[in-house]
Amino acid sequence: MEDWMEKVRAGIQKQSFARLLGLQVEEAEEGRVVISCRKRPDLLQQTDLLHGGVTGALCEAAAGYAALTVLPEGQSVIGVEYKINLLRAITEEKAVAVARVLKRGQQLVVVEVEAFNAGSDKIAAKMIFTGVPTQG
Amino acid sequence: MEDWMEKVRAGIQKQSFARLLGLQVEEAEEGRVVISCRKRPDLLQQTDLLHGGVTGALCEAAAGYAALTVLPEGQSVIGVEYKINLLRAITEEKAVAVARVLKRGQQLVVVEVEAFNAGSDKIAAKMIFTGVPTQG
Amino acid sequence: MEDWMEKVRAGIQKQSFARLLGLQVEEAEEGRVVISCRKRPDLLQQTDLLHGGVTGALCEAAAGYAALTVLPEGQSVIGVEYKINLLRAITEEKAVAVARVLKRGQQLVVVEVEAFNAGSDKIAAKMIFTGVPTQG
Amino acid sequence: MEDWMEKVRAGIQKQSFARLLGLQVEEAEEGRVVISCRKRPDLLQQTDLLHGGVTGALCEAAAGYAALTVLPEGQSVIGVEYKINLLRAITEEKAVAVARVLKRGQQLVVVEVEAFNAGSDKIAAKMIFTGVPTQG
Repeated sequence: MEDWMEKVRAGIQKQSFARLLGLQVEEAEEGRVVISCRKRPDLLQQTDLLHGGVTGALCEAAAGYAALTVLPEGQSVIGVEYKINLLRAITEEKAVAVARVLKRGQQLVVVEVEAFNAGSDKIAAKMIFTGVPTQG
Repeated sequence: MEDWMEKVRAGIQKQSFARLLGLQVEEAEEGRVVISCRKRPDLLQQTDLLHGGVTGALCEAAAGYAALTVLPEGQSVIGVEYKINLLRAITEEKAVAVARVLKRGQQLVVVEVEAFNAGSDKIAAKMIFTGVPTQG
Repeated sequence: MEDWMEKVRAGIQKQSFARLLGLQVEEAEEGRVVISCRKRPDLLQQTDLLHGGVTGALCEAAAGYAALTVLPEGQSVIGVEYKINLLRAITEEKAVAVARVLKRGQQLVVVEVEAFNAGSDKIAAKMIFTGVPTQG
Repeated sequence: MEDWMEKVRAGIQKQSFARLLGLQVEEAEEGRVVISCRKRPDLLQQTDLLHGGVTGALCEAAAGYAALTVLPEGQSVIGVEYKINLLRAITEEKAVAVARVLKRGQQLVVVEVEAFNAGSDKIAAKMIFTGVPTQG
């Protein structure tokens, strides 16, 4: 059994931008990864809400790590495209992104992500992400 | 004649996350805004490339400011959805996003964004963005 | 209680292209509509599979009718944008699209659609759709 | 020099749904294809406008054929995802979709499509399409 929590944590550590955002892995298993981000004072838009760009980067990170959990050892994933709908503002202290692999094909991995205010079950953002497996 | 350069610069200053990324306005006129971002050591993915989440946030910022230039004084814009295709890596020291309003409707503003490595004319990322005008 | 089945059926009858495709309403309630389409010989691509354009039109129709079920009497919905991922071919005799409203805002309705081969629970296509309410 | 006009015409003939819509190739060269569709009485929505599902299928067809023109002989393309923004209604007798390849990678072909009312230069719909090359 793979320790996906540890692998995702190591992946975050290798990306300086993921560290800058303070991304935290909350859950990780094959095909499903949960990542969170705290609403720090330097991650806001003009009002006291998490910047949409942070929500986007959080969801994209969750998608990429979820894709990774369905690939063979030694492969990584390159994000090639995604769409995000921003449905509700992140008003709470923490945003949580739940990523789930929809399809693991030969050439593509498609992942769906839903982001929430911590403690809420109302969808704040929805992303569909396509990644391509690559060596190394 | 409105001084859009100054207004976009002021808009960036009001968003702590835009300041964190170091976004700079390069050009601004009615319907078209160009924003850039330097490839700092804290904005990278695992290799020495700009993180896709930074490219996404840069393009989204350019889209939002371009939408602003076609709205009446006193209105702002809320991004409701976007799609981005990441076509080429940002390998140069600076990424540049060129945003152009495609449609300014009563209820929606649709903006197209192309991002480039500084000095290159090959599209590195393409975004289509939809925003909703709002008061204040 | 509204008879959504009947209203969606009437809506299909008013659209000549929906009739051309032979769209059928399978289920309809507030916030959720299921539409199907038979794999007729004139709806194919070069191999014996349902054309992707038919799957797209089926999902878009389901999205629009689902949006309608959350609007006040007398309003209709204009589709402004959608994204679809085509994950698996439609190989069975019937495609079924299940549309569910994600967000009903003042200015926008966002709907998620999943399409399946009839009898299968594997997602064949996934759409996120944004519509704008309009009078009449 | 390849005769792309003839190849695209032959491609349309092999797809029963493209024939049903009456798609016509207008222009075709390496990396760029123009396809049109007449606003027939059986391709409408509830008002006298071309159904959005027809516009979507027209743009997707143009995208797929444009992708084909940059692939080696004997390869075809599978559409894996697209996003479309419907910006203006098709009110004229003919809709025209202009597809242009943005990126031809090893694993993916990305195509941009703009649709117009015949004779107008205002964008009626904008699509970004991703296809995967396949043998046969």
